[in-house]
Amino acid sequence: MQNEAPHEIEALINLMARLPGLGPRSARRAVLTLLKKRGNLMAPLAQTMANVALTARDCLICGNISTDDRCDICSDDRRAISEICVVEDVADLWAMERAGVFKGRYHVLGGTLSALDGIGPEELHIPRLLARVASEGVTEIILALNATVDGQTTAHYIADSLSYTEVTITSLAQGVPIGGELDYLDDGTIGAALRARKRF
Amino acid sequence: MQNEAPHEIEALINLMARLPGLGPRSARRAVLTLLKKRGNLMAPLAQTMANVALTARDCLICGNISTDDRCDICSDDRRAISEICVVEDVADLWAMERAGVFKGRYHVLGGTLSALDGIGPEELHIPRLLARVASEGVTEIILALNATVDGQTTAHYIADSLSYTEVTITSLAQGVPIGGELDYLDDGTIGAALRARKRF
Repeated sequence: MQNEAPHEIEALINLMARLPGLGPRSARRAVLTLLKKRGNLMAPLAQTMANVALTARDCLICGNISTDDRCDICSDDRRAISEICVVEDVADLWAMERAGVFKGRYHVLGGTLSALDGIGPEELHIPRLLARVASEGVTEIILALNATVDGQTTAHYIADSLSYTEVTITSLAQGVPIGGELDYLDDGTIGAALRARKRF
Repeated sequence: MQNEAPHEIEALINLMARLPGLGPRSARRAVLTLLKKRGNLMAPLAQTMANVALTARDCLICGNISTDDRCDICSDDRRAISEICVVEDVADLWAMERAGVFKGRYHVLGGTLSALDGIGPEELHIPRLLARVASEGVTEIILALNATVDGQTTAHYIADSLSYTEVTITSLAQGVPIGGELDYLDDGTIGAALRARKRF
């Protein structure tokens, strides 16, 4: 980009442009908004961001993002210790929490197995998951991985690793989403919903 | 939004969601990216933003955003002092600078006249513009305001205010954009381009 703004502001635009969903043009627009609201948006945003950058860390137990060594969920005694929901990412954990139905605990893998990218079980904290199953009195592992090839490969690997234990392994049901119209659904989803059909 | 993330991170998401082009969902995605790149994106971004929030100010002469009392353009002796380009916004100034054709100086109004929003000539620094014309040896004022009703009302007001001086008042040409296809242009633009047609 050309250097039409002062150097520091240009640097800010370039950093903002690295965020997902913002390109060079929308980053420039965002920075202009920040410049206009220096006092009541830019300063608090910078302050909060610095604060989070300093305090955020991965929960040592489940891998969730937290401001502590133990995340809010792992330190909440009301959450069942017997069920662990395995998710790929913190975003997936947040999505599960928004649904507000699951009352157990989580294990965040931080990705999926990928021979190409050199991501093996160690990188995904799978040994740590196995240790939790062995020590924490876990009775059910819910595999809430994405319905992609990589997600399902990872799910199968984890199920295999746990096959020698007594723990029940389940996965999220697949089918028609609530409010979904058949006409707009892909063939794979319709097929899965048909195979998993149940008495009305 | 529900409180699925730690309090501080939730606050960061809410602040980010106030940027143009980001809604609650994309702000969450942006913050997750920041959390993953705490060291090499989030920390420098927070630092740069705090720095800009502290140092950015409006140029006392032209209203451009600067890190000094006089912006880079106003303190550049190579820029002609005789031509002032009047723009609504810093974004418009940056757009003009990217075009790289104009070698004079600017005057940033910071908006347009609006009786409804109580924005009069004082709020737009129009008296300051008139003072510059009187004192700086200006020979041409280029009105580069947006081709909207408000923009054109403001342009007419400024032209009227300067009618008693000897300064030449011009405005940007209107017509078919470079690379533009007639089929995709609105009727107003085609009409303006036809009226302003010139010998081939």
